[in-house]
Amino acid sequence: MRALVIHAAKDLRIEDRDIEALGAGQVLVRIERGGICGSDLHYFNHGGFGAVRLREPMILGHEVSGRVAALGEGVAGLTIGDLVAVSPSRPCGHCQYCQEGKQNHCLNMRFYGSAMPFPHNQGAFRQELVADQTQCIPANGLTSGEAAMAEPLAVCLHGVRQAGEILGKKVLITGSGPIGVLCALAARRAGAAEIVVTDITDQTLTHALTAGADRAINTAKDTDAMPAFQTGKGYFDIHLECSGAPAALASGIAAVRPQGVLVQVGMGGDMTLPVQAITVKELSLRGSFRFHEEFATAVKLMQGGLIDVKPLITHTMPMAKALEAFQLASNREQAMKVQIEMA
Amino acid sequence: MRALVIHAAKDLRIEDRDIEALGAGQVLVRIERGGICGSDLHYFNHGGFGAVRLREPMILGHEVSGRVAALGEGVAGLTIGDLVAVSPSRPCGHCQYCQEGKQNHCLNMRFYGSAMPFPHNQGAFRQELVADQTQCIPANGLTSGEAAMAEPLAVCLHGVRQAGEILGKKVLITGSGPIGVLCALAARRAGAAEIVVTDITDQTLTHALTAGADRAINTAKDTDAMPAFQTGKGYFDIHLECSGAPAALASGIAAVRPQGVLVQVGMGGDMTLPVQAITVKELSLRGSFRFHEEFATAVKLMQGGLIDVKPLITHTMPMAKALEAFQLASNREQAMKVQIEMA
Amino acid sequence: MRALVIHAAKDLRIEDRDIEALGAGQVLVRIERGGICGSDLHYFNHGGFGAVRLREPMILGHEVSGRVAALGEGVAGLTIGDLVAVSPSRPCGHCQYCQEGKQNHCLNMRFYGSAMPFPHNQGAFRQELVADQTQCIPANGLTSGEAAMAEPLAVCLHGVRQAGEILGKKVLITGSGPIGVLCALAARRAGAAEIVVTDITDQTLTHALTAGADRAINTAKDTDAMPAFQTGKGYFDIHLECSGAPAALASGIAAVRPQGVLVQVGMGGDMTLPVQAITVKELSLRGSFRFHEEFATAVKLMQGGLIDVKPLITHTMPMAKALEAFQLASNREQAMKVQIEMA
Amino acid sequence: MRALVIHAAKDLRIEDRDIEALGAGQVLVRIERGGICGSDLHYFNHGGFGAVRLREPMILGHEVSGRVAALGEGVAGLTIGDLVAVSPSRPCGHCQYCQEGKQNHCLNMRFYGSAMPFPHNQGAFRQELVADQTQCIPANGLTSGEAAMAEPLAVCLHGVRQAGEILGKKVLITGSGPIGVLCALAARRAGAAEIVVTDITDQTLTHALTAGADRAINTAKDTDAMPAFQTGKGYFDIHLECSGAPAALASGIAAVRPQGVLVQVGMGGDMTLPVQAITVKELSLRGSFRFHEEFATAVKLMQGGLIDVKPLITHTMPMAKALEAFQLASNREQAMKVQIEMA
Repeated sequence: MRALVIHAAKDLRIEDRDIEALGAGQVLVRIERGGICGSDLHYFNHGGFGAVRLREPMILGHEVSGRVAALGEGVAGLTIGDLVAVSPSRPCGHCQYCQEGKQNHCLNMRFYGSAMPFPHNQGAFRQELVADQTQCIPANGLTSGEAAMAEPLAVCLHGVRQAGEILGKKVLITGSGPIGVLCALAARRAGAAEIVVTDITDQTLTHALTAGADRAINTAKDTDAMPAFQTGKGYFDIHLECSGAPAALASGIAAVRPQGVLVQVGMGGDMTLPVQAITVKELSLRGSFRFHEEFATAVKLMQGGLIDVKPLITHTMPMAKALEAFQLASNREQAMKVQIEMA
Repeated sequence: MRALVIHAAKDLRIEDRDIEALGAGQVLVRIERGGICGSDLHYFNHGGFGAVRLREPMILGHEVSGRVAALGEGVAGLTIGDLVAVSPSRPCGHCQYCQEGKQNHCLNMRFYGSAMPFPHNQGAFRQELVADQTQCIPANGLTSGEAAMAEPLAVCLHGVRQAGEILGKKVLITGSGPIGVLCALAARRAGAAEIVVTDITDQTLTHALTAGADRAINTAKDTDAMPAFQTGKGYFDIHLECSGAPAALASGIAAVRPQGVLVQVGMGGDMTLPVQAITVKELSLRGSFRFHEEFATAVKLMQGGLIDVKPLITHTMPMAKALEAFQLASNREQAMKVQIEMA
Repeated sequence: MRALVIHAAKDLRIEDRDIEALGAGQVLVRIERGGICGSDLHYFNHGGFGAVRLREPMILGHEVSGRVAALGEGVAGLTIGDLVAVSPSRPCGHCQYCQEGKQNHCLNMRFYGSAMPFPHNQGAFRQELVADQTQCIPANGLTSGEAAMAEPLAVCLHGVRQAGEILGKKVLITGSGPIGVLCALAARRAGAAEIVVTDITDQTLTHALTAGADRAINTAKDTDAMPAFQTGKGYFDIHLECSGAPAALASGIAAVRPQGVLVQVGMGGDMTLPVQAITVKELSLRGSFRFHEEFATAVKLMQGGLIDVKPLITHTMPMAKALEAFQLASNREQAMKVQIEMA
Repeated sequence: MRALVIHAAKDLRIEDRDIEALGAGQVLVRIERGGICGSDLHYFNHGGFGAVRLREPMILGHEVSGRVAALGEGVAGLTIGDLVAVSPSRPCGHCQYCQEGKQNHCLNMRFYGSAMPFPHNQGAFRQELVADQTQCIPANGLTSGEAAMAEPLAVCLHGVRQAGEILGKKVLITGSGPIGVLCALAARRAGAAEIVVTDITDQTLTHALTAGADRAINTAKDTDAMPAFQTGKGYFDIHLECSGAPAALASGIAAVRPQGVLVQVGMGGDMTLPVQAITVKELSLRGSFRFHEEFATAVKLMQGGLIDVKPLITHTMPMAKALEAFQLASNREQAMKVQIEMA
């Protein structure tokens, strides 16, 4: 079978790989779709991010769906041909954090397509994948494109849960890429009364409006909008920061009211922050990292018609055009979510 | 009556002031003790802090206790001669935040001895004070010195509450001044199983040990101690940051385990923080600002013998030696809490 | 002006009343719609409920909307002709509970149309009403029928908030009257992934399905359905009990999984409960009583198109036919929400 | 080795049993002390409780401590001769609830000395015990009597945690047996400002006072005391119900203020409860069942001198007098905690 392998920045190849043996409790999945995520783009464009660097060739990808092709011993409840969303999260189940129900902090996590340990965790942009049954969430009723959105949607459901109570609340979302827009969908689903999304690119903001945001602000053009929310002690109850930009988090700290919550969903680096404002307003700044049970929740909410991710999938391209797909996904003005057909 | 009035940095004077009229629901308190706080020292040494600057002469002080000397119309439940701890917090009771039960965020707060609005809120380092009955918490059974500790203890009880569940938890406290040591007392009272306090001055750390800390670390000398807590994903459940030093908060971010809580109790300015670690470990960084119902709780816990603040009161000086008291209080190596006898 | 006055069980009269004087900060509202609530029906059918009994004639009603007809001194932000939803909740703002932000527990509450203290709090089923501006939530964009639904919707938003996190959760709702159906709408809005509603009347259950419930069970006919949810340690995460029937709460205790939450929204009396199951499964049984800030939230969510209450308003009748309206509303098989046109 | 085996009500025998094989990751513990718990007494006096009945001979006991006598393969961090508190809780680690961090709800729990499944889980009142290392908490510095109190203390720490924030709060504890008194110790450790304990036996109440309760009330004699706490909307913030008596829970429902919390720690059966009061005051009634990480916390708090359980151990008797020990423990007026020396 073929797989998309990154060797170094800009060096993405289609290569043949053997299919792993199918063990007990496992499922052979014929992958149909794989969505390109920001971390995939970091490997593609820069060979890594921060201290995480490619040290050997790695199959990319962790947002995938496919059809059940074979069942290992003891697998019940799945049928050949079923569409499944495949969770890329493989916690050990035994460490301290797994036993506390914090599997996203597993000490032995093997997340698909991540160069964090060495040897790297090979990813899921491939034609055949052997996964544990626990990773395979039945997604019948969805398109394979929707099912491949379960992973980023799970990230955003987790981010919204980190914010605590959101019903009836006023929510600021900074960053209108796929994660920002999925956060808007998740925040709306969770009952946010008012959602304002900011970005510096008009094209991405139109997706926020389609997703139901009440207002979209291009902060590069409209420099008066955010200051208006920062008068008094601040307007918003909650800030979901999805851009990773230091200025975005700082703008939220000024715009959130006393005892409000800011959730850092996007991956940021070192930032200079006004800690005095955090102290005086008693804000809570919380990190959000990946997901756990939200993966199955994401599938369930899409199946119930309660969250519609289809408008975000702006492009679908065959595996043969993977290089083009990655270049397109790197351009925020042209693409929201780009998916690759693996078949 | 006489009062301690700050005119500018280093310009502290004893001046005569008229006693205010005693209105309905009010109490005339003959002040016995007043404790010098870090913010008093900022006015004394620097004329203010950050954007908060002295613009007119201001009576200093907000940590006071005294005896009931007269009762306004309609005051019941207090007797002439009762010792009371006087809360310096005067929320309006009507604004949005007061009606939400978040009085420490009152939009019209008139906190004693604060130059935050103009005209300034005159303070309580004076011989006679007219206060609302709601500010006067009966403190019989305590010494006037202890009663004057109700305010900083309330700050620390509030800080500990911001940390959430603390029973059985491992707690790091950075900064071993009066706030750090009172936080150690409060954290122990709330059930912390293990308390480690850091500072860069040995003298202050001995007070942390007296207060029951399990370990005191001088990070200026023992540079191996904190790194040992930062291995793996971090050792502590909770960090109470009481120094305002950026390095202290950063050291806690590295030393707190996934989903742990950091409470910024000390007043810090802009800080450069490793937001990636906050995100990946899903830490919660929360501000803590002043107090509300914790003032009465502080008195109650001291009265019940559940928290003993007496060892912290290292010096007591007469009003006539106020200048000397402020100089002494400015020297962390010589003094913990310095109180002034107003009588 | 005319008002609907209850004198005793079944003795409902249309009577003339004087309009109160319009004070500063107050608004004269020309009432358009008033919805009949379960407690109104208790007064009408039984002269009260439990220990709450009619002791003098009382204007009924607390679910009302109307048009601004005159503005008292100092009222800004409202214009003559504006549609407003009028909150029947009048907490004192001064007592212990108001100052804690728990206004629904106000010690001096004067809730419209309630015989709880004596003299009774006269209600809002009348043509002209003088209300405080804080009670009048602008509802432009809504119909007056929808605006009069703000109150019961607020009750249900409050009930859903009592349940804690609901995003992605499985929710059981027992009782499919207006409160049960509004709870279904609120739970769906708050992100419930699966909603099952039970009742013993088919007609009410059709409204639950219209409101988006995933399944409606007539427990009088389908006696196998609930037991299926009670196998193992229980299926649901959350139970919103809206019927007040002891059997309903008991069925939920058996059907909710360990550490799940049950919210008693309906008003029940003494009930014999399996406390051992509550203990062993560590369930939380919480009461829900009225609402506070949820009133404004209800209006906002309706205005944003996020909750649609219109299908619940099954009947609208003129004041002249009030008696008929009350009889109709007493028949669960014929009516869901019955509203009276006061104009 | 010898073990204490219950065959039927009142039929307790000392019998010989083989020592189990020592597997990898396991520890052979020479048991020193075993405390008699209420459930042991139910088996002894009644052959079971509720639906839980003896169906085969069962070794009793789940509150034990001992010395490490041998180490299985791969066990590190323990030395022969170490004192350990042995947790009787053996969750499977794999089921849904274990993976959620709710091990006390494990679907495959094998709790020592419990007749809940069949074959029964044999208990720990024996001379030699093979336990998993994860069950063996090092308890050096404690007496073996204290170490054997880790289990009931863990139950009470868990109960106190179920109550939520307790720092500065007013707490009612009903039932002054070992669980009630340990709850008083735990509540005090967690910062309760005021603790009132009730019972119907004077002898048990003296233990509550020794444990630091502020007031002890014999409700059988002093019938005015509880009503005084039930005026207005109620006096206490928290009620820890440790008696299992319906009247006790009902008295707390009346005595707890709006939005207060009641935790059912004692095992009760069906109870008739005033659900209207729960609703109108928005009380939370929560169950508390066993413990998980609190077992290690219990040991740590005792080692740190933060909780002193020694005064509760009123009697220690040799295994040969086990029958007498059980009879004594059954008499609340004579004994608090009775422990058996297994050596």
